[in-house]
Amino acid sequence: MRYLHTMIRVTDPDATIAFFELLGLRQVRRMDSEQGRFSLIFLAADEDSKGQGQRADAEVELTYNWPAEDGSPAEIYAGGRNFGHLAYRVDNIYETCQRLMDGGVTINRPPRDGHMAFVRTPDNISIELLQAGDRLAPAEPWASMPNTGQW
Amino acid sequence: MRYLHTMIRVTDPDATIAFFELLGLRQVRRMDSEQGRFSLIFLAADEDSKGQGQRADAEVELTYNWPAEDGSPAEIYAGGRNFGHLAYRVDNIYETCQRLMDGGVTINRPPRDGHMAFVRTPDNISIELLQAGDRLAPAEPWASMPNTGQW
Repeated sequence: MRYLHTMIRVTDPDATIAFFELLGLRQVRRMDSEQGRFSLIFLAADEDSKGQGQRADAEVELTYNWPAEDGSPAEIYAGGRNFGHLAYRVDNIYETCQRLMDGGVTINRPPRDGHMAFVRTPDNISIELLQAGDRLAPAEPWASMPNTGQW
Repeated sequence: MRYLHTMIRVTDPDATIAFFELLGLRQVRRMDSEQGRFSLIFLAADEDSKGQGQRADAEVELTYNWPAEDGSPAEIYAGGRNFGHLAYRVDNIYETCQRLMDGGVTINRPPRDGHMAFVRTPDNISIELLQAGDRLAPAEPWASMPNTGQW
């Protein structure tokens, strides 16, 4: 028995793919179903990836349900508290947070401790980032950056 | 960069641990914080496990917030549609579903196709089960079993 993936629903696949690419993941597989009017997009971190087109060791699956053909409004995907977050280990948490911030992502819980940060996807899925190995020495702008919202 | 875990919040840790053990995962790490009044329980599938006490390749983290000392009611963890499910590959989907059913778990989406099933944790986190390799030949009681609820 083995873990395969965590699936999240997305209202804007391009925005969510852009978020995960900024974070450092890459799209490894994608399936678009004209008949079912949905797209499944699988992304993975570099250390989990087995190459383009291959199932990675651990994937995040984005499910995008296409707009209804009759023009009826798309479902809004609210969050729920039973789900917590997805967690990734990163090589340098300051560099990852800087790249996300430069890309317009709010750092909800900045890595003040050089160890842990939280951000959210465009559909408010919480993502935890954990520094690989020992925590980094405290550094600005992170050390004095306040929390924003919840995560 | 590497995937670490998916965290879910639980209202009854023992019930959720029992659910995941029935599914085939094992607890690999646990941390109880008297000061913070919470418990973190990490479980992993056998193929992801690195042994007792070791961080597994892919973990599910259960967060249990202890009841408030002042007796105020515990938070109810409702679900949200932005989160979809956790997925695991299993060696024999019929055996896994039988074991879960014998343990009192509702098979929301039975493996009629010998390939895919869905169940839910006690806090309604959806779990997808996928048959390893080729789909199994259709077999009862699964082939004629209707869906129950949503997943």
